[in-house]
Amino acid sequence: MSQKSKRTRRRRAARRDSARKSTLDRLPYIQNRISYTELLSSEALETIEHNADTILEEIGIEFRRDPEALDVWRDAGADVQGERVHIPRGMARKLCGTAPSRFTMHARNPGCNIEIGGRNLVFAPIGGAPFVEDLDNGRRYGTMEDFENFVKLSHSSPAIHHAGFHHCEPTDVAVNKRHLDMTYALLRYSDRPFMGVGTHPERAAQCIEMAEIVFGKDFLDDHVVMNTIINVNSPLVLDETMSESLKVYTRRNQAPIVTPALLAGAMGPVTAAGCLAQLLAEVMAGIAFTQLLNPGSPVLFGSFLGAVSMRSGAPVFGTPESLHMLYGAGQLARRLGVPFRTGGSLCSAKTPDFQAGQESTAMTYATVMSGANLVHQGAGWLDGGLCASYEKFVMDADHLVMVQRFCEGLDVSQNSQALDAIREVGPGSHFLGAKHTLDNYRTAFIDSEVWDARSYEQWVAEGSTTAAQRANALWKQKLSNYEEPAIDPAIDAALCDYVTRKKASMPDSNA
Amino acid sequence: MSQKSKRTRRRRAARRDSARKSTLDRLPYIQNRISYTELLSSEALETIEHNADTILEEIGIEFRRDPEALDVWRDAGADVQGERVHIPRGMARKLCGTAPSRFTMHARNPGCNIEIGGRNLVFAPIGGAPFVEDLDNGRRYGTMEDFENFVKLSHSSPAIHHAGFHHCEPTDVAVNKRHLDMTYALLRYSDRPFMGVGTHPERAAQCIEMAEIVFGKDFLDDHVVMNTIINVNSPLVLDETMSESLKVYTRRNQAPIVTPALLAGAMGPVTAAGCLAQLLAEVMAGIAFTQLLNPGSPVLFGSFLGAVSMRSGAPVFGTPESLHMLYGAGQLARRLGVPFRTGGSLCSAKTPDFQAGQESTAMTYATVMSGANLVHQGAGWLDGGLCASYEKFVMDADHLVMVQRFCEGLDVSQNSQALDAIREVGPGSHFLGAKHTLDNYRTAFIDSEVWDARSYEQWVAEGSTTAAQRANALWKQKLSNYEEPAIDPAIDAALCDYVTRKKASMPDSNA
Repeated sequence: MSQKSKRTRRRRAARRDSARKSTLDRLPYIQNRISYTELLSSEALETIEHNADTILEEIGIEFRRDPEALDVWRDAGADVQGERVHIPRGMARKLCGTAPSRFTMHARNPGCNIEIGGRNLVFAPIGGAPFVEDLDNGRRYGTMEDFENFVKLSHSSPAIHHAGFHHCEPTDVAVNKRHLDMTYALLRYSDRPFMGVGTHPERAAQCIEMAEIVFGKDFLDDHVVMNTIINVNSPLVLDETMSESLKVYTRRNQAPIVTPALLAGAMGPVTAAGCLAQLLAEVMAGIAFTQLLNPGSPVLFGSFLGAVSMRSGAPVFGTPESLHMLYGAGQLARRLGVPFRTGGSLCSAKTPDFQAGQESTAMTYATVMSGANLVHQGAGWLDGGLCASYEKFVMDADHLVMVQRFCEGLDVSQNSQALDAIREVGPGSHFLGAKHTLDNYRTAFIDSEVWDARSYEQWVAEGSTTAAQRANALWKQKLSNYEEPAIDPAIDAALCDYVTRKKASMPDSNA
Repeated sequence: MSQKSKRTRRRRAARRDSARKSTLDRLPYIQNRISYTELLSSEALETIEHNADTILEEIGIEFRRDPEALDVWRDAGADVQGERVHIPRGMARKLCGTAPSRFTMHARNPGCNIEIGGRNLVFAPIGGAPFVEDLDNGRRYGTMEDFENFVKLSHSSPAIHHAGFHHCEPTDVAVNKRHLDMTYALLRYSDRPFMGVGTHPERAAQCIEMAEIVFGKDFLDDHVVMNTIINVNSPLVLDETMSESLKVYTRRNQAPIVTPALLAGAMGPVTAAGCLAQLLAEVMAGIAFTQLLNPGSPVLFGSFLGAVSMRSGAPVFGTPESLHMLYGAGQLARRLGVPFRTGGSLCSAKTPDFQAGQESTAMTYATVMSGANLVHQGAGWLDGGLCASYEKFVMDADHLVMVQRFCEGLDVSQNSQALDAIREVGPGSHFLGAKHTLDNYRTAFIDSEVWDARSYEQWVAEGSTTAAQRANALWKQKLSNYEEPAIDPAIDAALCDYVTRKKASMPDSNA
């Protein structure tokens, strides 16, 4: 063989490897083929919907320190008393009717675009943790390095389809400047759809300006490239931080997720049907407000539902009450016709132990079967969201690959029916060497990167590790193998310049 | 207050405490209010059913070393070639038609009777593990003391409704005598329904004789008091050990569970639709055989579905492929009209870590939503069933209490709707001190005995324990608090006498 043809072969082999690698690196968003769990009867759902309207009309919802919002509601025909907005029965639901039931979120790599709504399901990582932890160094405040690591780990996780935001608080950067560094990291170290800050209108506008550098200003006029979480201050308050940020995204056609953070017994009643009515009232008020501002603008029905322990007051997740509320919220969202977002790997465990596995798995499968379209907090969550765990992150992300396979449903093709294999093997033999097994074994089962599936003896010989110990090696390996996605150098330079200028224009502030 | 009235008050208080205690000690079997997950379309199910009939007719199933079985099949019109029984299309399903779709299992304490079938769901503990383990002493072969401990722990678990059998192998008793000691322990240390041995016809008959001592001989003529697991030697073999044991139970109107132990890629095809067709063929053949022997006798559709790792050959559970097969099997059982049994806390993890929590929880919720009527292996399972873990047992059992609450569905009563509470609290406040919260907090949420729901600081102050470490203290506490259920001393003496006589009549044998 000539030197040239050898080189050609090597290049071809390298291309093949690279093609295979990119398939493994990234799974498309999910088209969920699993039937949703209809927990509540139509009659029960109507009762809850009636109660939500009663809440909005009779008790009302407060838009605090936002006179513009009050004007908007007054003009729409609501009864505004002080900051309290009383919304006539049926009005909020009617206004929600202009919100799109599905839309595309564009990524800077178009191959990573995602569809929000319908039977589509998208996983995003943890957000909002002040602390981080790993087995080597224990728990500590998060830093920008940790944040970048979680962006890179998300980008390296095949079944995390959305880059997220705010995986941990980078406490080594001033509060008023963090969003700039975080948004840069998201746009530079990932090429998937991402989230902007929702806790400050000026900072929200800066996140959008950075997206405009990447996508072009015009593109944002009619394409969704980012979302944000707008938390209702449950019960029944949208404060100006949230309503002003919501306005920034909505007016720019980007997608807020109206999310009451509702722990039963604290921010909502101690019973599920009451929480759901309050949740629905709060969500409808928020979504209706977006549609008054910009009819047809994209928005999501958010839910973040748990309970507080009646012994300690701490949040609990994965309990039957949380699961009930999650299934109910999914049904209410479908009836409202707005895409549904919920939390994923939620747990109250303080360390990635058996409890954490139970809580997270109960919640994650419930998100799938509740009909969620977007799952934030899909990986890494520990201690009621106070802590982003490196080990739990890669374990949850590994599990999401399995969950994604689950969502594909059961294949009943001729090949899966395997009648010839059963004929070939016959009674009393085994399928280990059957032709059908040899033809299918590479793709028949999902292979976990974390789960141990060896003999006990092999497991002991290799150190009797826990899943968390194996995950400790895995996240380091993933960070060391991480490859930056390509970016146009001119865009990168423009982003860096923007961040530098903005940071230089403000003194550090921790407010 | 007089001495007498003080004493009366104390007695009344004691009775109240005792009443409360017994409620906590024991939950009734579950009436599952959660909608089942219909994974496969009617068309897909018909395809699988058609394939199952093709397997039975064309390939056939072997009844090995059991000439009587072959005669029974021949008389029924099957085409018997050697030991291979070819069952004409439609015949097996038709024969299954006389099996009852539901029946009562009577416990020696009638308050513990259970209903098998319909929307009822019953949890039973682990069975069949050669090893046991706990955090103090690690892994070792099981003993009679371990077995008794697991019977006591099962009896002390509110959401374990069935005493099980064979939680671990008592290797310190000869193989041919173990079933006597185990059956005595089940009848003495628990008062719930139980299982008899299914691996030897003579021993099966002795288990039944012991039940007759407790319930009376006549009672068994028309009441089900025990079940047993009859494993098909997949693919497509019922050996004489199993068919002879099956005959013993069926002729005595007790309930065999026809359970192919089917790991995809080893005892079944590497693909799910093929495994389901083979499973259905094997189950239908076994159930049809019971109905030929004793039409109308109780029997269950058993499934034990997993896969083998294509890297190590070890069994894996909780993977998407197992979940798919479980949901499919539940649908097939409902269409056959026979109660459905499956496994519960299955996992391949070697230690009760995050992986074990993920696997067990995925499987357990899938049993609920697949429509299972009886879940064996509901608590304690580790390492593909090779090991019964004390810590995992109490963690799984604790979780079953939550799962049971989940099955109750979402309460939409006026109290749960909590409109007055939302009115009372209003915007911007909290529900912690609301009247509705105070009225409901004791029963609003299920309280785990294992899960940590405290602040991080409290958790650290109390030793930064894992769930397994907390479970280590819990199982010891449960064993130390265990109270024997009452038994008629004459019955106890008769049972002891029976065991002593039978053991004395045989030399020890380990075959």
